[in-house]
Amino acid sequence: MKCTKCGEQAVVPIRRHNAAFCTEHFFEYFDNQVQRAIKEHRMFTRDDKILVAVSGGKDSLAIWDVLLRLGYEAHGLYIDLGIGEYSKRSTEKVRKFAEERDAVLRIVSVEEEYGLGTTELARKAGRPACSACGLNKRYIFNREALEGGYDVLVTGHNLDDEAATLLGNVLHWNTGYLARQSPVLEATAPNLVKKVKPLYRLTEREIASYAVLRGIDYIVEECPMAKGAKSIQYKHILNQLEELSPGAKARFLFGFLEHGRPHFQEERERVEVRPCRVCGQPTTAEVCAHCRMLQRVGVAVAGD
Amino acid sequence: MKCTKCGEQAVVPIRRHNAAFCTEHFFEYFDNQVQRAIKEHRMFTRDDKILVAVSGGKDSLAIWDVLLRLGYEAHGLYIDLGIGEYSKRSTEKVRKFAEERDAVLRIVSVEEEYGLGTTELARKAGRPACSACGLNKRYIFNREALEGGYDVLVTGHNLDDEAATLLGNVLHWNTGYLARQSPVLEATAPNLVKKVKPLYRLTEREIASYAVLRGIDYIVEECPMAKGAKSIQYKHILNQLEELSPGAKARFLFGFLEHGRPHFQEERERVEVRPCRVCGQPTTAEVCAHCRMLQRVGVAVAGD
Ligand SMILES: [Zn+2]
Ligand SMILES: [Zn+2]
Ligand SMILES: [Zn+2]
Ligand SMILES: [Zn+2]
Repeated sequence: MKCTKCGEQAVVPIRRHNAAFCTEHFFEYFDNQVQRAIKEHRMFTRDDKILVAVSGGKDSLAIWDVLLRLGYEAHGLYIDLGIGEYSKRSTEKVRKFAEERDAVLRIVSVEEEYGLGTTELARKAGRPACSACGLNKRYIFNREALEGGYDVLVTGHNLDDEAATLLGNVLHWNTGYLARQSPVLEATAPNLVKKVKPLYRLTEREIASYAVLRGIDYIVEECPMAKGAKSIQYKHILNQLEELSPGAKARFLFGFLEHGRPHFQEERERVEVRPCRVCGQPTTAEVCAHCRMLQRVGVAVAGD
Repeated sequence: MKCTKCGEQAVVPIRRHNAAFCTEHFFEYFDNQVQRAIKEHRMFTRDDKILVAVSGGKDSLAIWDVLLRLGYEAHGLYIDLGIGEYSKRSTEKVRKFAEERDAVLRIVSVEEEYGLGTTELARKAGRPACSACGLNKRYIFNREALEGGYDVLVTGHNLDDEAATLLGNVLHWNTGYLARQSPVLEATAPNLVKKVKPLYRLTEREIASYAVLRGIDYIVEECPMAKGAKSIQYKHILNQLEELSPGAKARFLFGFLEHGRPHFQEERERVEVRPCRVCGQPTTAEVCAHCRMLQRVGVAVAGD
């Protein structure tokens, strides 16, 4: 297998592009895909202050790495979820990554914030762990970005994540979600930070290759709470389609963004957003889902 | 396992409805699903003259059987594709079915019509067999319905067929097809017959149970040309989703019809249709795809 660019020994095959790259040209390809995503969707510029939500996994560390190398002002935000050994090891990986690069890292601890870890919080709230965790993360990401004066929040969502979400939305015809699914979520309400996904053009496998070749030490296991999640089943199905027809995943997602999504636009305007009476973050209800969960558990919201 | 209706021994479990039925109540359920489809989509009434496209397989014979039992004026139309042993055996099954019920059966032979069988025709036309066969069938169905003065053409498409087509259309975001996919295709142009799919609410498995319990002798094997077709792969994937979450297939299809499809309506009006210069059937080109294929092969269109 020869590099498509230089003819040297290739290390990363990319079937969907009918290509293969040596390390050097794979890095070039990878950076190009990220920069194309940033430009095409006007995610941010070099003047913006960027906050990267990092989990310690390959995706978020890879995008932080790319942005730092390309000279963006990108700080990290890590939420310590307090999920036992998993969170301890993740925290270490993230700290080490930031130290090695002399990068600014903000850390928020769920236990310090709410007085109990994600698992307990979810149990007390009578919610599935992933749902409670998602609420907390979204709330904290947004608050930290606002308080820190950041222009944009970067997440590590990749092509596989986005295609799996899309498949779920299509199987259930969640037209409201179809209207909103995008590599860019603009700050359409006061107190809402812009969110972007610069890795949406790259697959899980490509990102893992990037992390390995760049020597990024990341936490390999998925969150132990996420086992058996629907998104994992959808990824499995999309991988079968990809096997049968390389590029199927990308065609599905990119085709949606170009041809499918515009058809659902009218659904977007229907939603009326206002500030949560408790925390001030945008919500469609009187009190946002995050604050309602905390009220139920009996935890006061920080800043109350 | 007890019948959900009468508590007697059940013979057909229907997981997606969390139900099971004895033979009698399964027949009742089956007829109800067909009648609901007919009514909800205004497919036809007892005053209409109905032509059923029959292949000798379980689906088309099952719907013809239901319509005859319910007292509709339903004639059969069988196309002998001239695909060796498969077509011979199919012809026998269809003839026997019609004779037993004293039903009117029209037969068209592709070999008599074009002077060569489907396989040869496709080869000469440089088209995949399924594509050439589809063109011929659509053309002959429409012509026979018009010439025979039928109000509507019934096909045996079931829930699995429709969900697989939908999955393909969604994976490729064929928005034009998404706009048109429906259990009813109205006669929106002159010389175009209305087409309906009264089995779209019933799965392949349910229809096979119906055929077996009614003692319908049908041809079990799929058309030998269809092996490895994309639709079979999509059905396999949808069956996996159904295993994980019973009812997933029906939710996907019915959800599309109710919530997804309306978003693609504007795509429908864009297509301009006119009569084919050769055969007079509606087409978006000067000469329809069927006639272009025949011209290429050097066969004159019947009626020229
Ligand atoms: Zn190279
Ligand atoms: Zn709130
Ligand atoms: Zn019963
Ligand atoms: Zn024609």
